[in-house]
Amino acid sequence: MAKPLILVVNDDGITSHGIRTLIEVAKELGTVLVVAPDSPQSGMGHAITIGDTLRLDPNDIYEGVEAYQCSGTPVDCVKLAKHYILKGKQPDLVVSGVNHGSNSSINVLYSGTMSAAIEAAIEGIPAVGFSLCDYSPVAEMSHIKAYIKQIMQNVLENGLPEGIALNVNFPAYSAKRPIKGMKVCRQALSKWQETFEERKDPHGRRYFWMTGSFENEDKGEDTDEHALANDFISIVPCSYDMTAHHSISRLNTNFSAK
Amino acid sequence: MAKPLILVVNDDGITSHGIRTLIEVAKELGTVLVVAPDSPQSGMGHAITIGDTLRLDPNDIYEGVEAYQCSGTPVDCVKLAKHYILKGKQPDLVVSGVNHGSNSSINVLYSGTMSAAIEAAIEGIPAVGFSLCDYSPVAEMSHIKAYIKQIMQNVLENGLPEGIALNVNFPAYSAKRPIKGMKVCRQALSKWQETFEERKDPHGRRYFWMTGSFENEDKGEDTDEHALANDFISIVPCSYDMTAHHSISRLNTNFSAK
Repeated sequence: MAKPLILVVNDDGITSHGIRTLIEVAKELGTVLVVAPDSPQSGMGHAITIGDTLRLDPNDIYEGVEAYQCSGTPVDCVKLAKHYILKGKQPDLVVSGVNHGSNSSINVLYSGTMSAAIEAAIEGIPAVGFSLCDYSPVAEMSHIKAYIKQIMQNVLENGLPEGIALNVNFPAYSAKRPIKGMKVCRQALSKWQETFEERKDPHGRRYFWMTGSFENEDKGEDTDEHALANDFISIVPCSYDMTAHHSISRLNTNFSAK
Repeated sequence: MAKPLILVVNDDGITSHGIRTLIEVAKELGTVLVVAPDSPQSGMGHAITIGDTLRLDPNDIYEGVEAYQCSGTPVDCVKLAKHYILKGKQPDLVVSGVNHGSNSSINVLYSGTMSAAIEAAIEGIPAVGFSLCDYSPVAEMSHIKAYIKQIMQNVLENGLPEGIALNVNFPAYSAKRPIKGMKVCRQALSKWQETFEERKDPHGRRYFWMTGSFENEDKGEDTDEHALANDFISIVPCSYDMTAHHSISRLNTNFSAK
């Protein structure tokens, strides 16, 4: 049997520690193609580059791996890989990350890592986004490599339901609190409480930095936040169908066709 | 009773024809606050500005309306409005658009217009994104103003289900095919077929333009695409819960906690 083709993307950029971790694992399981941003693209969500040009250049930093760096967003990388580099051929698996920082709960919407995985799901490709709850650019990832391999093998063998990408978040490394296992969960319905720090530039004009704290108002025990807080890996199946199907009939009574 | 506070945002920029249309209607219904990008931000999806600074400056182009232009994304505009300008006070309604171009089907994910509305829903504010299926920057909008007013009034009176933003798309103006009414629909499960046009810059280095064609593979008669193709306004209730709830049990058998 031919080795599976695994497309590796991310949002932290092609040289990040997280993508190296993913490439190492993917090389054990298949033929690897890397298409990643040439600079960090955190918080880019599902942005695409339509009003500007895109650059795509080969990059030989990963020995024995075909790799490209792209000036665009994580979603651009998936589109360029599928429609330009692979000329429409489907990879067997798309993996995105490992993101340096959590993408659990509402972060799935802001995350370039997860948007790349969801874009792959739109294209009908089994896809997994991996994130580590540790923002350090040199975060310890030795404790998650075996799990990454296990999840990738599982998806290569079993596929995923149509239109679904997995949002996998790992607890940060802790010698005292090792990972207990994996849990398939729902996204916690939480949000960020933003604050904007106002400063003056050297010319006297004001500017802002967005900061904030994450607030988990969702106390359900079936959420990704609950799994992570209890030392489990969270796995949330994500759909690109944003429709709130359960609301259609109620709204139909308000907005009936005339 | 105090007039409702209506926050108007968009992704085409503060001077666009679409936002002017929305401001005109909103002024008839309440007190208007405008916070919009200082330049076009189409295709920005749910991107936020976290690695860079933000500018926010007052803009007096709209007589009698408090307005600000922002260097960031549409989602940044909502966050700045809520947490900085309004100091946490909730607007009664957030309206986004009118976008110059369709945001039906899969476009909801790429759309800055809809991401701003969904961000408002995350904040617990009733929110509607309006888009017109006409990409012209001077598109005719006279045929949709009465509908915009009707929808805004409806949401101000009845509210929306928790966590839901409406994705409203209008057919382009046509003298021969007037709008027949409104339909509450689901998002058609379609996608773009991208092509990348390769060019050389004056220095001999290649670059790309993303282009593509929209493919509607979803033939359901309950979709937004079907409504629009039949001269109806499509209204899709959108949720920020990306969880594919129906897949959790199937995936649990694959990834059981150990």
